[in-house]
Amino acid sequence: MKKLINSPDTVVTDALAGIAAAHSSLAVDIENKVILRAAGPTAGKVGLVSGGGSGHEPLHGGFVGYGMLDAACAGEVFTSPVPDQMLVATKGVNGGAGVLHIVKNYTGDVLNFQMAAELADDEGIEVTSVVVNDDVAVQDSLYTAGRRGVGATVFVEKIAGALAERGAPLAQVAAVAAEVNERSRSFGVALTSCTVPAAGKPTFDLAEQEIELGIGIHGEPGRTRAPLQPASAIVEIVMDAINADLAVDGDLLVMVNGMGGTPLIELYGAFNEVSKYTTGHGGRIVRNLVGNYITSLEMQGFSVTVCHLTDTLADLWDAPVDTPGLRWGR
Amino acid sequence: MKKLINSPDTVVTDALAGIAAAHSSLAVDIENKVILRAAGPTAGKVGLVSGGGSGHEPLHGGFVGYGMLDAACAGEVFTSPVPDQMLVATKGVNGGAGVLHIVKNYTGDVLNFQMAAELADDEGIEVTSVVVNDDVAVQDSLYTAGRRGVGATVFVEKIAGALAERGAPLAQVAAVAAEVNERSRSFGVALTSCTVPAAGKPTFDLAEQEIELGIGIHGEPGRTRAPLQPASAIVEIVMDAINADLAVDGDLLVMVNGMGGTPLIELYGAFNEVSKYTTGHGGRIVRNLVGNYITSLEMQGFSVTVCHLTDTLADLWDAPVDTPGLRWGR
Repeated sequence: MKKLINSPDTVVTDALAGIAAAHSSLAVDIENKVILRAAGPTAGKVGLVSGGGSGHEPLHGGFVGYGMLDAACAGEVFTSPVPDQMLVATKGVNGGAGVLHIVKNYTGDVLNFQMAAELADDEGIEVTSVVVNDDVAVQDSLYTAGRRGVGATVFVEKIAGALAERGAPLAQVAAVAAEVNERSRSFGVALTSCTVPAAGKPTFDLAEQEIELGIGIHGEPGRTRAPLQPASAIVEIVMDAINADLAVDGDLLVMVNGMGGTPLIELYGAFNEVSKYTTGHGGRIVRNLVGNYITSLEMQGFSVTVCHLTDTLADLWDAPVDTPGLRWGR
Repeated sequence: MKKLINSPDTVVTDALAGIAAAHSSLAVDIENKVILRAAGPTAGKVGLVSGGGSGHEPLHGGFVGYGMLDAACAGEVFTSPVPDQMLVATKGVNGGAGVLHIVKNYTGDVLNFQMAAELADDEGIEVTSVVVNDDVAVQDSLYTAGRRGVGATVFVEKIAGALAERGAPLAQVAAVAAEVNERSRSFGVALTSCTVPAAGKPTFDLAEQEIELGIGIHGEPGRTRAPLQPASAIVEIVMDAINADLAVDGDLLVMVNGMGGTPLIELYGAFNEVSKYTTGHGGRIVRNLVGNYITSLEMQGFSVTVCHLTDTLADLWDAPVDTPGLRWGR
């Protein structure tokens, strides 16, 4: 295992210390592994909390800040945070207007956020949860009953965060989060595995000219393996899978996301193929992200997430955001 | 070779087409491989042109936009663009106040930009060049007489771009670019090689537990090879090399840059070590970047660039910037 780390035991806390040193806009509770806005909760604003296993950076901690999340809980690599962390985060962002939990659909995350919501309720904090499940690759997966939550999480955090910033009540913020999830679909491809530091060896093995279609963000098995082929052919498989689930027509927000080890030159090439595909299917990409937003450590590969925009969602997408991982317009 | 590409022959143009599809703020001349601001030259503003081999994305094309570059020329992967491209870019950004060429110190780039400057001069465009040579690792290198130009290029493009945006004349913009270069030092480390698409095999070989200290951004040999060791020890070697060349005290702008295949969780851990080192040596990191800014395809590894700030340079660093690769404050 070749990694730029001190030890598998400290990889998460070392990164949290680095985030704390780099971003004065954030307050990092290293002991509890919770990242919050340094300014504290905004009175009267719905608080947004997300979290999950580490190894997907910049998700979620990199999306804490104005116009997006109020706090993120970091688990160990590819391991759900525990309810106590989520409770610390929930209490830390409570501005009196309730808290939204944004939960990727993995069984551990869902159960732990559910428990945290109950604990928060005991302390008089109203919590609503939205579960993100946009991955069309497989119906059930290694760690998940139902579809996995992947790239749409970035869209949900951005758009719900914008609405919360405008002072909308909890029910409306939760509704827009659910709407974004319902209008989004994703599919991922791995060219290589990744190595969880504590495991010390690759999560899975792929042959020299083999790729995995429909991979999960923890390296969970996808639909099938296939030979390496040109990017245009790989993108067609990805987009056919998404399009079969929800036709990619109309105005679209599209993310071509790197898994962590794929360089930007390749992601832009893939975006070009996605753009050609959607144009050929009556779709129009009116907003986009190309880069590393929800990663799987150093895995080589990419995912595509398509969200069907409305004017309201586009307006919320365009609203100012100021986080380490996403920043514009302010 | 496992890459998300259509073919080695089209990797650069496919990426340029993707950049064009993704960013309406940019005008991409795919035939000439030049990326310009869509709005065209700003009358009375000094135009900033940079460029170099592809494979270092987001550098340089991702830094075209308000507050930074006016145009970037893309060569083939790890290959200098030709003078004709540079001339197209220079003419395309000429707003009547002259043009600054920002050139990384590689022999091919330097010669070609020099020829382009002469061609532009023949057409009545005043050009000044600044050569970036911040890499302390080796005195001469595979493609370079003198020090290589690496991470400081990002700082030069940002800070000179800000001054140009304020309407400063060419001599002042060139002077601040040279000042940033003189105040900056870099050092890089590779954990793995990268593979140039046209070559089809890794540029160099490293053993399973071996790293290369002082690597260049094209995989050029560094100072020495060493066993893999904890991030804290690797960072100490990096920072000792930088500190030996120019003491890391005072107010610093620091970039911990990923080589393309190293995930953000590791870069933040490394930033934490850099932060501890500078604090221990009388330095204060008052601005920072952590992420992939000047890459080497899918290479695993990182580089550190340290720039000694003045109040003026910090103010220019903070000025609004709106490019695909760097964006804030506007």
